[in-house]
Amino acid sequence: MNNKVKILDSTLRDGAQGYKVNFSNTDKLTIIHLLDDIGIDYVEVGNPASNPRDREIFELLKDEKLKHSKVTAFGSTRRKNTNVYDDNNLKALLSAGTSVCTIFGKASLFQVKTVLECSEEENLKMIEESCRFIKVHGRELIFDAEHFFDGYKENKEYAVKCLKAAEKGGADLVCLCDTNGGTFPFEATEILKEAKKAVKIPVGIHFHNDSGMAVASSVGCVLEGASHVQGTFLGIGERCGNANLISVIGNLQIKLGYTCIPQDKLNKLTPTAKAMASVNNSVLPYEMPFVGKASFTHKAGMHAAAVLKNPHSFEHIDPYLVGNERRFPASEISGKAVIFERIKSLVPTLSPDGKEAEQVLSRLKELESIGYQFEGADASFELMVRKKLSLFKSYFKLIYYRIYTGVGTPEDYNASATVKVQVGDELKLMAAEGNGPVNALDKALRSALEEFYPALKNVKLADYKVRVLDGADAATGALVRVLITSTYNKRRYTTVGVSRDVVDASWKALEDSYEFILMKLDETK
Amino acid sequence: MNNKVKILDSTLRDGAQGYKVNFSNTDKLTIIHLLDDIGIDYVEVGNPASNPRDREIFELLKDEKLKHSKVTAFGSTRRKNTNVYDDNNLKALLSAGTSVCTIFGKASLFQVKTVLECSEEENLKMIEESCRFIKVHGRELIFDAEHFFDGYKENKEYAVKCLKAAEKGGADLVCLCDTNGGTFPFEATEILKEAKKAVKIPVGIHFHNDSGMAVASSVGCVLEGASHVQGTFLGIGERCGNANLISVIGNLQIKLGYTCIPQDKLNKLTPTAKAMASVNNSVLPYEMPFVGKASFTHKAGMHAAAVLKNPHSFEHIDPYLVGNERRFPASEISGKAVIFERIKSLVPTLSPDGKEAEQVLSRLKELESIGYQFEGADASFELMVRKKLSLFKSYFKLIYYRIYTGVGTPEDYNASATVKVQVGDELKLMAAEGNGPVNALDKALRSALEEFYPALKNVKLADYKVRVLDGADAATGALVRVLITSTYNKRRYTTVGVSRDVVDASWKALEDSYEFILMKLDETK
Repeated sequence: MNNKVKILDSTLRDGAQGYKVNFSNTDKLTIIHLLDDIGIDYVEVGNPASNPRDREIFELLKDEKLKHSKVTAFGSTRRKNTNVYDDNNLKALLSAGTSVCTIFGKASLFQVKTVLECSEEENLKMIEESCRFIKVHGRELIFDAEHFFDGYKENKEYAVKCLKAAEKGGADLVCLCDTNGGTFPFEATEILKEAKKAVKIPVGIHFHNDSGMAVASSVGCVLEGASHVQGTFLGIGERCGNANLISVIGNLQIKLGYTCIPQDKLNKLTPTAKAMASVNNSVLPYEMPFVGKASFTHKAGMHAAAVLKNPHSFEHIDPYLVGNERRFPASEISGKAVIFERIKSLVPTLSPDGKEAEQVLSRLKELESIGYQFEGADASFELMVRKKLSLFKSYFKLIYYRIYTGVGTPEDYNASATVKVQVGDELKLMAAEGNGPVNALDKALRSALEEFYPALKNVKLADYKVRVLDGADAATGALVRVLITSTYNKRRYTTVGVSRDVVDASWKALEDSYEFILMKLDETK
Repeated sequence: MNNKVKILDSTLRDGAQGYKVNFSNTDKLTIIHLLDDIGIDYVEVGNPASNPRDREIFELLKDEKLKHSKVTAFGSTRRKNTNVYDDNNLKALLSAGTSVCTIFGKASLFQVKTVLECSEEENLKMIEESCRFIKVHGRELIFDAEHFFDGYKENKEYAVKCLKAAEKGGADLVCLCDTNGGTFPFEATEILKEAKKAVKIPVGIHFHNDSGMAVASSVGCVLEGASHVQGTFLGIGERCGNANLISVIGNLQIKLGYTCIPQDKLNKLTPTAKAMASVNNSVLPYEMPFVGKASFTHKAGMHAAAVLKNPHSFEHIDPYLVGNERRFPASEISGKAVIFERIKSLVPTLSPDGKEAEQVLSRLKELESIGYQFEGADASFELMVRKKLSLFKSYFKLIYYRIYTGVGTPEDYNASATVKVQVGDELKLMAAEGNGPVNALDKALRSALEEFYPALKNVKLADYKVRVLDGADAATGALVRVLITSTYNKRRYTTVGVSRDVVDASWKALEDSYEFILMKLDETK
């Protein structure tokens, strides 16, 4: 028995259809590398025909090296009553330059008649010819049978014909899609079994979560022979989202003996989930199975006591297997081991039981209580640890900054800032204009520091994110968390600042950005 | 065939164990009435023995009249090696004064040995005697068989003995609990069938969501004969939460022919869900099946076009059945037809093919190209349409604003703003301090406008969100989109502003917020 299940992540295609989801190209590259790092087999990146922004990312990908994941481009079959060789969608799909392509076509007679408005035969030809067109260009080909489950319930013969047309066209795999998300697991597994009998190529599945059962249907179908699961890492996607791949992987690999990702990557599930949520400018839902902050949190006293006797009494798996941790919020005894490990990786000389680690831990708790979160802000975490342990030398000191802004000035220079810093015994005052207060502050600080540290010319600010933490309670006076990602040559690092003033939060993240790289440059001297 | 499935909501007991969940007594009464209004059969309110705050709510309930729901109090079996008549927990359970009681006891030999640390026989006696004690006092009795599914997998004979002990003690129903949430639906249904054979009384089920399958297991077990489902309305609860009762009810009642709540209450599912989320001081997750804001939102242009042809093409049920609605966010990828429909709903006199609609469309595209997105910013969309069609009268005009901010001032008043506005022929200059530039601007503008429009005192800013659009390319000079949600009495509306200056973007969203409500107040005059 071959227990490998291939996983396709569609965060950047179907996930991008999620409510309020909006990825920049940098976000997309970050997500692709996160998925590659954890060993996801296929990363579906977008639809080059329908969306010009998706085309850009395929261009950028031509310069990226991935260790494990194959990138796939997504597109539809040729349009009805046209010649496949003249089809611009299919040409765009090829020009994305990926080794794998996914073609979607309708596998429901109702959809063919109502939405496509073409004949049964024409739809089958569209599927077969489009598949063949991609295959003659030497690509690996996944055929997504859109609306397959509903189509099968309406007219099983026709739904199966669609799969066979794809197989005849040379598809390497057919993926059965529950496009409307209405199928129950008990139906899904029966239909999957029938589909498996109808074709010789491997069969995959893609479930939407409109009935709240996408994970159950995915796992159920794998037990019946599906060897490829599509979904999104965090379950995001159009309407109610897709099967959450974390739950799919967790259930299949830990509890049912399948292999989805390399075994030594399992404990990356939680940090990867947090990083993905951060790229999506959101907080990982506390209650997300396997990786959520609450997933192994034992709030009831009786449960906490039982877990201390034997964790199995209220836990379905060991949280550390997936990189998560057990928490006892009432007793504050959680998580220490994990933090100690992280501190120790930065300062290897530290004794994990010692007083110093306790000091760092208490500083961390203090910062977290005022809105800091260091997941995805590696550089600020390291600075915090070193500062607390007096392993940091100061490179500059802010004397003051002042910001002036208002309407009525030219649009590109809406704001001006003056910054006064001290480096050693020298004071430096600099002013700059910017298109907003943060931009002006950034420019003034940078030009002041570059006089002392010319290497800072190579620091580029690559990403800037603002997250409002308590907008519902405090409105415009809300606490904001600013994340700044910087690059120095090829190295990327992220810093964080928190304040009720967006300028002040940005200042803190900027200060960390420059301090961090100056510290790193010192270390490599 | 009796298709009635009884529903027990445990929001106030298991739900209260959820991460960051904290209900006041007023919250609890609100929730109880919401559940009663929608026709939930049992409302589990708390554990009077373990929690003094739970006792208060039972006292308060003695003065409340419910139309449909029975209130149940929750408590454990007697302690080991004691006399049931001396057990304070059981006495507290009775003194809650509810017509229904729920007793939980362990149905797993592993748990009995490891956690209870008593003999197999003693546990069976604890169950039977405790049940009998409650029954002789004339209460309806539910026995929750804690850890039943895991217990059955470990030692099926013993797990079944526990059910029989409860039946012998007079329990009216045994509820099989998947306390650790690790059971798969395919296991759950097989075990349920065996349990059904072992006892003559009705069998219920309670699933936790640690594997992400609580809804699938609940629905699957009902199909195999469970006649009582426990969960929480929104799925909240300890660790990963409980079976989401909205999904359980939606699937069973709309798609499988069961009756869970009165049929005429089905369309209260969405408003009740929103109200429950609001009591829990949270926003209903957009992607929640059946009731989420995104659950019937068609963002992809191709999908929106298909749904306009036939909603069944991308919807598993009719959203209006559950009180939800179909949405076509006005985003860059949706089709013209969708936008025309939205414009027409605002200005019904408009011809959808006319020149005016085209003008609005071209203004929309222009705004989208500079970063606007009206998805979720209903009020700004309406203002934009009315302004473009000259259906808007101006209420105030900004002459200028100026912001001063910097470090060194007291933390709560880091920034100050002056705002000068013109209303009719009058000019008004106001200044205010705030904890950041946006907060200061907000306060100054509001105090200037309230002199002319006292009704604005009732506008509350309820939420503030910042999204950086091109942080990756422009870093601190990035384009930002600000969304402000305001309330006027009970009405919520959202406005948007975009700029490279976060203060300016906030200004635009604030300006829209006040303009919108002034316009609406004019309309209702």
